[in-house]
Amino acid sequence: MARIKTMEWRPGELHLIDQRKLPVVEEVVVCRTYSEVARAIKDMIVRGAPAIGAAAAYGVALAMYQFVEEERDRSELPEYLKEVRETLAQTRPTAVNLFWALDRMNRLYQANRDLKPEQLKERLEEEAKAIADEDVATNRKIGEYGAALVPEKAGILTHCNAGALATVDYGTALAVIRVAHEQGKDIHVYADETRPFLQGARLTAWELQQDGIPVTLITDNMAAYAMQQGLVDLVITGADRIAANGDTANKIGTYGVAILAKEHGIPFYVAAPRSTIDASLATGEEIPIEERHHSEVTHVFGTQVAPTGIDVINPAFDVTPHRYIAGIITEVGVLKPPFTESIAEALKK
Amino acid sequence: MARIKTMEWRPGELHLIDQRKLPVVEEVVVCRTYSEVARAIKDMIVRGAPAIGAAAAYGVALAMYQFVEEERDRSELPEYLKEVRETLAQTRPTAVNLFWALDRMNRLYQANRDLKPEQLKERLEEEAKAIADEDVATNRKIGEYGAALVPEKAGILTHCNAGALATVDYGTALAVIRVAHEQGKDIHVYADETRPFLQGARLTAWELQQDGIPVTLITDNMAAYAMQQGLVDLVITGADRIAANGDTANKIGTYGVAILAKEHGIPFYVAAPRSTIDASLATGEEIPIEERHHSEVTHVFGTQVAPTGIDVINPAFDVTPHRYIAGIITEVGVLKPPFTESIAEALKK
Repeated sequence: MARIKTMEWRPGELHLIDQRKLPVVEEVVVCRTYSEVARAIKDMIVRGAPAIGAAAAYGVALAMYQFVEEERDRSELPEYLKEVRETLAQTRPTAVNLFWALDRMNRLYQANRDLKPEQLKERLEEEAKAIADEDVATNRKIGEYGAALVPEKAGILTHCNAGALATVDYGTALAVIRVAHEQGKDIHVYADETRPFLQGARLTAWELQQDGIPVTLITDNMAAYAMQQGLVDLVITGADRIAANGDTANKIGTYGVAILAKEHGIPFYVAAPRSTIDASLATGEEIPIEERHHSEVTHVFGTQVAPTGIDVINPAFDVTPHRYIAGIITEVGVLKPPFTESIAEALKK
Repeated sequence: MARIKTMEWRPGELHLIDQRKLPVVEEVVVCRTYSEVARAIKDMIVRGAPAIGAAAAYGVALAMYQFVEEERDRSELPEYLKEVRETLAQTRPTAVNLFWALDRMNRLYQANRDLKPEQLKERLEEEAKAIADEDVATNRKIGEYGAALVPEKAGILTHCNAGALATVDYGTALAVIRVAHEQGKDIHVYADETRPFLQGARLTAWELQQDGIPVTLITDNMAAYAMQQGLVDLVITGADRIAANGDTANKIGTYGVAILAKEHGIPFYVAAPRSTIDASLATGEEIPIEERHHSEVTHVFGTQVAPTGIDVINPAFDVTPHRYIAGIITEVGVLKPPFTESIAEALKK
């Protein structure tokens, strides 16, 4: 487990470790309003699809704290909560867990709209806590199902951070790695640094180092070399949104890694909770891809690394077509191709 | 042409633009001894296979300046020049142009070993200038042959910097791009930033921006996305050493780009002078790959971006097997598969 909590709830406060500054600086940001939570998600103080979902749920809980404290009239509540949902929903467009969590909070509100604000506040706070707690339990199961895919001795490549810091705790791709390590398997992780935000260098390498799991940091463009050298036996990444056919949006660069894995005959797995599946989308082509600010590419930790005024693209995600994916590791088991069937089946459970 | 010269020779002085600091800082380093040239190559003040070759040749010329100035006895010359060659040769192991240039300087010395040191100094200085001048002429021809491969409208992806700054002037891969642009072709370049040293972001993006050639900077892990989006019609990179069968060592990440190109049905070209071919090596497996200091990965411009003590690999190059290469663009034409034949033929010219 990571020594530092991704998020910690205290009544009326959401404490977030500032993931922009790790691992060199360990700083906690305290959010007391839903707007602060929205800002924290947008600015990537908290990131990772499951973590974003849980943080957004806590954002709704905080909104109720504000509503009660301000002694606003309950007649204003429907409009207020709509505004809260929209503010939180507009932070990041790709990870579906955000919308899933907001929907779940809204369903609870709709089912309890006759309660007084004070009571509703308690119910929504409980629901946010439940989302967070379930995330940890889900990740444990993902880890157990996934670990069965890991050979006794294995080099595992991962991209971005699908670890404790991308979730409430334990991680998705890193849950698989953690359980395999707990089982005594002789594993060695290769962590892509994952430009531009460097989640691999800053977060994954750090988490695994803290846990004493052997890890080697590589730049993204060394992945093919590592595979060519026979260092990699399987690839596991997280996911931000999975379409009904298995097409998977994940951190930019994942699609490239999937191609490299295919070329080297290495299985490529996705680890994600079912809340990452967006069954309303037939294929990955419909997944909206967030374009982030060009300064993430032109600057590293504030230092300019490219000429002033250079044109840049900065898609935060890419879509890996399902044909590159050997399996999707969820809390109800490893889904195999054809995904249209296995995903539909998993959602029924 | 780049506004700033990669290297400029003045009697007894080699002026090098410090490529570690571009594009934000434009600083010239003046080398007055062969040891300073060796240090400049090792530290990547000057980099790029053809540029390293020319710089090493000037290093030998500087060594003769030192020998004459110190009024050393000519009997010491054979041992002295051997030491000079070894010092320069030990800087970087992969780019064969370094050894090619040192061999060429040595052959001239051997053919003129009866001359007085003062005369030999002049001859070696002339030879170094000839190597530099020929490099520019060679690159022009590479540009012309290569431009014929570029469609009237094309997106071109390049990796690292095979531009004016990697050569004495004009570049290899970027020579192709420059000539295509001069010919009025509607081209748009996608420049991989090329971690860890960021030659793409710092040098290629900057060179093309200076020349008014449309260029978009991407992180290395966006190359697959750009191809998936249909933005890339061909890939052109430089080379550091080409084996007799066409296997090509180039900047780390090149192999991955070649795989991505193949998967998307995009031709992958290598642009390099014949001096990059090492016919003594049957395949790329024999090419030595330089491993550089871990701090290039863990730090960016002095800022730490990874946990302290993390394990890192940092191969400066990788080898792209010849089967991924559509053609090798040289000053005597575009070599096509089977490369064992076309390369042997080209070396006879």
